[in-house]
Amino acid sequence: MKGFASDNYSGAHSKIIEAVINANKNHEKAYGNDQYTEEAVGKFKQIFGDDIDVYFVFTGTGANVLSLKTVTQSYNAIICSEFAHINVDETGAPENLTGCKLLTIQTNDGKITVDGIKKYMYRIGDEHFAQPKIISISQPTELGTLYTVDEIKEISQYAKKNNLLLHVDGARISNAAVALNLNFKQFTKDVGVDILSFGGAKNGLMFGEAIIFFNTNLSANFKFFRKQSMQLSSKMRFISAQFTALLINDLWKQNAQQSNKMAQYLYNKIKDFKEIRITQKVETNGVFAVMPRELALKLQQKFPFYFWKEEIGEVRFMMSFDNTTQEIDEFVELIKGEF
Amino acid sequence: MKGFASDNYSGAHSKIIEAVINANKNHEKAYGNDQYTEEAVGKFKQIFGDDIDVYFVFTGTGANVLSLKTVTQSYNAIICSEFAHINVDETGAPENLTGCKLLTIQTNDGKITVDGIKKYMYRIGDEHFAQPKIISISQPTELGTLYTVDEIKEISQYAKKNNLLLHVDGARISNAAVALNLNFKQFTKDVGVDILSFGGAKNGLMFGEAIIFFNTNLSANFKFFRKQSMQLSSKMRFISAQFTALLINDLWKQNAQQSNKMAQYLYNKIKDFKEIRITQKVETNGVFAVMPRELALKLQQKFPFYFWKEEIGEVRFMMSFDNTTQEIDEFVELIKGEF
Amino acid sequence: MKGFASDNYSGAHSKIIEAVINANKNHEKAYGNDQYTEEAVGKFKQIFGDDIDVYFVFTGTGANVLSLKTVTQSYNAIICSEFAHINVDETGAPENLTGCKLLTIQTNDGKITVDGIKKYMYRIGDEHFAQPKIISISQPTELGTLYTVDEIKEISQYAKKNNLLLHVDGARISNAAVALNLNFKQFTKDVGVDILSFGGAKNGLMFGEAIIFFNTNLSANFKFFRKQSMQLSSKMRFISAQFTALLINDLWKQNAQQSNKMAQYLYNKIKDFKEIRITQKVETNGVFAVMPRELALKLQQKFPFYFWKEEIGEVRFMMSFDNTTQEIDEFVELIKGEF
Amino acid sequence: MKGFASDNYSGAHSKIIEAVINANKNHEKAYGNDQYTEEAVGKFKQIFGDDIDVYFVFTGTGANVLSLKTVTQSYNAIICSEFAHINVDETGAPENLTGCKLLTIQTNDGKITVDGIKKYMYRIGDEHFAQPKIISISQPTELGTLYTVDEIKEISQYAKKNNLLLHVDGARISNAAVALNLNFKQFTKDVGVDILSFGGAKNGLMFGEAIIFFNTNLSANFKFFRKQSMQLSSKMRFISAQFTALLINDLWKQNAQQSNKMAQYLYNKIKDFKEIRITQKVETNGVFAVMPRELALKLQQKFPFYFWKEEIGEVRFMMSFDNTTQEIDEFVELIKGEF
Repeated sequence: MKGFASDNYSGAHSKIIEAVINANKNHEKAYGNDQYTEEAVGKFKQIFGDDIDVYFVFTGTGANVLSLKTVTQSYNAIICSEFAHINVDETGAPENLTGCKLLTIQTNDGKITVDGIKKYMYRIGDEHFAQPKIISISQPTELGTLYTVDEIKEISQYAKKNNLLLHVDGARISNAAVALNLNFKQFTKDVGVDILSFGGAKNGLMFGEAIIFFNTNLSANFKFFRKQSMQLSSKMRFISAQFTALLINDLWKQNAQQSNKMAQYLYNKIKDFKEIRITQKVETNGVFAVMPRELALKLQQKFPFYFWKEEIGEVRFMMSFDNTTQEIDEFVELIKGEF
Repeated sequence: MKGFASDNYSGAHSKIIEAVINANKNHEKAYGNDQYTEEAVGKFKQIFGDDIDVYFVFTGTGANVLSLKTVTQSYNAIICSEFAHINVDETGAPENLTGCKLLTIQTNDGKITVDGIKKYMYRIGDEHFAQPKIISISQPTELGTLYTVDEIKEISQYAKKNNLLLHVDGARISNAAVALNLNFKQFTKDVGVDILSFGGAKNGLMFGEAIIFFNTNLSANFKFFRKQSMQLSSKMRFISAQFTALLINDLWKQNAQQSNKMAQYLYNKIKDFKEIRITQKVETNGVFAVMPRELALKLQQKFPFYFWKEEIGEVRFMMSFDNTTQEIDEFVELIKGEF
Repeated sequence: MKGFASDNYSGAHSKIIEAVINANKNHEKAYGNDQYTEEAVGKFKQIFGDDIDVYFVFTGTGANVLSLKTVTQSYNAIICSEFAHINVDETGAPENLTGCKLLTIQTNDGKITVDGIKKYMYRIGDEHFAQPKIISISQPTELGTLYTVDEIKEISQYAKKNNLLLHVDGARISNAAVALNLNFKQFTKDVGVDILSFGGAKNGLMFGEAIIFFNTNLSANFKFFRKQSMQLSSKMRFISAQFTALLINDLWKQNAQQSNKMAQYLYNKIKDFKEIRITQKVETNGVFAVMPRELALKLQQKFPFYFWKEEIGEVRFMMSFDNTTQEIDEFVELIKGEF
Repeated sequence: MKGFASDNYSGAHSKIIEAVINANKNHEKAYGNDQYTEEAVGKFKQIFGDDIDVYFVFTGTGANVLSLKTVTQSYNAIICSEFAHINVDETGAPENLTGCKLLTIQTNDGKITVDGIKKYMYRIGDEHFAQPKIISISQPTELGTLYTVDEIKEISQYAKKNNLLLHVDGARISNAAVALNLNFKQFTKDVGVDILSFGGAKNGLMFGEAIIFFNTNLSANFKFFRKQSMQLSSKMRFISAQFTALLINDLWKQNAQQSNKMAQYLYNKIKDFKEIRITQKVETNGVFAVMPRELALKLQQKFPFYFWKEEIGEVRFMMSFDNTTQEIDEFVELIKGEF
C-alpha cells in the first residue's frame, strides 16, 4: 500500500532498475575505476562544468558526513539549522566522525539566515571555543521549504568573507530544482556553494548519493576518508549506473515533478478542512499539517505517515516519485469520512 | 574481459538481479522494517538457528568494523593476523572507528594460532596497555587458506577461557563452506564463534554483507552503531532480497563451487611450469604464485590480476563465480607462448 | 596586579605549596599507587562515605569529559545548559572524545530544569536519534548562580525515572557549598548525583581536579579511559597532596568564603551605579554586569576582567581566594572617577 | 626507600620546587599568557634558535600524541619501533586520538632503521591502505639505547625524500644529550627532526613536558588540538617555571649525568655475576638484564624494579636523578647474599 511516510518507502524507478541490469555485464574494475562511473561523472560535469570532483557513496548521512569531514579538523564547528538532518536524524554521526561541534540555529521554517550564523561568529582564534569552519544548509529544507537563489547567495557571500565554507544537503535537490525552475548549477555552484550532497535514493534510486566538490582543492584527500568511513562500494558501477539513468532524459525532473505535484495536490485537497492547519509553505514534496491526534492515528492505520511533532499533533506527508492522485483521493475520502 | 583480479570485479549473478527486480514493488517500510528483510533474516535463522541476530550492511569493511565496534571500548585491543583485511585493506578504519589498537600476529599462511595470541595476553588489567577483547580471524584467509574446524575450536576455547570474543571475517565464507564440505553453522556457531561477517559481494551479490551475532547479548546496541557509522540502508529490501536469493536453492553453494573449482583448474594448469611457484595451498578460490616479474607484467596486459608482493614477484589470482575454464585456458596459452 | 579576570589567574594558596613541598620526599610508586593519593582518597571518603570511587586528573575539562566518556557510548547524547562549560569552553572536547551529541537547553541564569530536559526526551530507541544518557549541570553555574538542593533533587529524580545519569560540573563546588551552607554530600550524593567533577584549580590549587563516582558500578573502566585520554599523572602525589591540604582544616571553605565574600563586596559597591546593571544573582564568587562598553575598556586597562557578551556590554568579575577588599576599593574608585 | 623501578618514582629536584614557589606570586594570565611561560619559551629558543614553536603539556603521552595528532589526518599511519612508548605504554591513545594506524618495526635494541621503515612504504596513494605520514623514534629508546647522530640523520633524510615527517619521543632526551656529549640541537633540529617531545618528569620535574616544533608550519593549529585534548593547563606558569629551572645552570645536565652514571655504576657492579646477563648496551640511565626469576622476586621485596619480559626473567633497572651509589651498593650486597 502506497502511503506518505517517506520518499524512501518507495522502491526504485523502473528505468533505474533497467540501468542496473544493463550495468551487470562482464567484469569491471572495482572501487569506481569502471566505465559506468566514468560515464556518471561525465553526466555531472555536463551539468556543473568540468572543474568539479564527483564521488559516489551509499547514503545521505554518508554524503553529508563525508562532505563535512573532508574539510574540517576536529576542533572546528559546523553551523546548521536545528532541524537539519545532520543535527536530528544521523545519531550524532557528524559529531562522532568529524569530532566537530554542531552549532544550531533556531528557525520556524528550517531556513537559516546570516543573522543566525553571525550569532556564532565570535571567539574566532580562541582555543577554548570550537572554531566555525563550514555552514550546512538543506535545499529543500527538512520542512519542505526552499531557499531562493538570493538567500543562498547571501549566505555564501557571508561565508566567503568570514573564511567559512558552504555545504548543501541536497538529499531532495531535484525537488528544489523543479520547484525553483532552475538547473542544478544555478542555485549551487553559481551562487558560491562549495560542496553538494546530491541525493539519489529519495528521488527513485535503489540507493546511492553523490558528493560534488565545486572547489576541487577541497577534495584532495576525499578518497581516503571515503574508504576509511566505509562508504566505498566495491562494485561501484551499481551506484553510478543509477545516477547516469537519473540524469539522462531528465528522469530526475520527471520524478521530482511528480512528487512535488502530488504534494500540491494533497495540499489543495486538505487545506480547507477546518480541523487541519497547514504549518509550512508547500514548496516541494512535503506537506506539514496539524490535525487532531485522534484523527491522525486513525488515518495512519490505512496510510502510513509520520508524526513530526507528536505533542502538537503535527504530521508530515512526504510524496514519492510514484505517488499518484489515486491514493491521495482515497486518503482525502478517509478524512471526509471522519467528519 | 574477465580476468582474475578480484571476486568483486564480476557483476552480480542473474538470480540476484532477478531478486532485486522482484523486490521493487510498492512501498515498503524503510531501514529494514520490511517483508524482504524479515524473509532474509528468516533464511539465516534456518541455517544458524533462531537464537541469533542478523543485520545487513553495505560493505565488508562495514561488517568487520561494526562487528568489532559493537563489542569493544576504545581502550581495547583486537588480535588478528598481520595479513587480515582489517589490518591491511581498510585504511585504518578499525582503529579510527573503534579507537582500539590492532595487535597483529605474523604468519606464513594467514592463519593465526593460540600460540600467536598468547604473545599478547599479558599486562591484563594494566591501564597503560590496550586490553585484548576480541580475536578476529578470516575464514578463508586473505591467502585463500582454510582453518579446520578443530583449529577454530581451539582458538574459540582459548578465547572463552581468557574472556575474549571471537569474530570471523567471512567475506568469502561460502568458499570456505564449500571447501570444507560443511554447512555454515558447523564451523562457526557450533565451534564457539561469537560474531560473523557473512560476505555477499564476493560471491555474486551487487553489494551487501550480513553481520550475524551468535551471542545475542552482544548486539543490544548494534542498531545505533550501524546508523551512526553510516551503514544503515534506507531501502534495505534491496540488500536483503539479494541475500534471500543467495541462500535459497543453494545459489551461494553453486557460486562458490564454481570459483573454488576454477582456482583448482588454474592451479593444476600452472603448477608445473618451472618458472612458476605456487606459494599457498589452493584451498578456496585464490591462487598465489611467484613468477618472473616481466612475465607477470605481460600477462596483466591481457588478464587483470594483482601483484601480492611485487618485490618478490608474487601474484594473486582470485576467481569469481562467473569465471570459466575458457579464460583460464586462454591465460595458460598466453603463458605457454612466453616460454 | 590582582584583578577579576578568573579564579585561575591567582596562584596557589601557601598551604597548597607547603603540601607539595612535604610530598616531595623519597621515591613513591607512580600513577597513583602512593601514600599521598591513598590519603587524599581517604579524605574524600570521610566527606562522602566509603562507597565512592575517587580519581584525580589534571584539568576541569579532563574531569568533565572523562566523567561523561566513562558512562556513554558514542551514539548517546548529553543534556546540558547552553552556557555549560562543556558546551562553550572546551573546544568541542566532549563531542570529540565521547562521540556524543550535546543537547543544549536555553536558560537565562544557567540553570536547567526538568521542563527543559523533557524537550529532548523523545525518539527514545529510535536509531536515527542520539540517545540521551546523562544530564550535566554546573553547580554553581557558569553565571555564578546556584541550584537549590530541591532543584537538584528534582532533576535527579527525573533522571532516575528516565534511565538517565546526573553529572555535576563542580569546578567551583566549594563556592557552592559555602553559599548553600551545606556540606558537599548534602547537595550531591544525598540528592542523587551520580558523578561529580570536584574542582581544585579554581579554589587555590596549582592544578588538579577530582572525579567522584557515587555509583561505583559506573567507574569500572575509568582507569583505562583516564590513561588513554592522557589524564593520568605519573607523579600523582603532587595532585593528591594538594587535595589533602585543601580538605583538611577546611582550607577549601576558607578560600571559597573569601572569594564569595569578595563578590558580595564588589556587588554592594557597584550595584547602585546607575550606569551599571547587575545581570545575575550574586550567589557565589562571580558578578555579572552590563556597563557602557567604553567604561569597561577603560577599567580593563587597570584591572583585568572579561567581557561576557561584548555586544551588549556585559562583563564578568570573577573573584579568587586571594582577592581582597583593597583591590575592589581601588577598582570602585576608578569607576567613580569616570563619572 | 629509593629503588630502580622508574625515573618517575622519584620526586622533584629541590630547585624545581623552588621555582614553583617563586612562580607562586600575584595573579598571572591563565593558559600560558604569563611571564613564566614567556621566559621558559625563551630558554628553549636559546637552545634551539628562534625559529621554533614551544608548547607545554602535562604528560609524556600527551606530548607524543599531540605531536602526532597535529600533523596527521585520520587515514595516515605512524611508523615506529614495536617497543615504542606510543605502541606499548599509552593504552592505544595514539590510535584513538589521531585515528591513525601504527606500523611497527621489530628490533632487538629499540632502534629502527631505514630498512625497517621501507617495509611499510608501499601502496602510497592506495585508498585502502593507511598512508604513512610520520616516523616516531625514541631517543634514548625505551631500552636505554641511543641513536647516533648519523643514524638519526639517515632516517630524517629518508623521511624528507619520502614526504614523511620525523618525530622524536624525548621523554629522556637529557640522558641522551649527556651520553652523546652533544647539545640538544645537534642531534635533533640540526639533523632534520621535525617535532620533539622534550621530557621533564623523568628528569626531576614534578610534572610537565614540552613539545618543540622545528618546522613552525606544522604547529599552526596546535593550540586548538591541545585544548581539545585536555592538555592545556590553566595555571601554566607552574609547568613553565619548572622548565626554566631545568634549563638554567644546566640542572638538566646535572640530573641526567647522575642517573646515567648510576646506571653505569650498577652495570659495572653486576655485569660479572655469572647468574646475570646484561641484555642491552648501557648507554643512558637504564640497565636491562636477565636473571633467575626467583632471584628477581627476592630482590624486588627490598628494591622496587620491574620485570621487562617476565617469561625470560628479564628485568629493568631505571635510574633517577636522585639515585646514589649507596642504594646500589646495598642492592649489590643483597645479590651477593643470594649466592
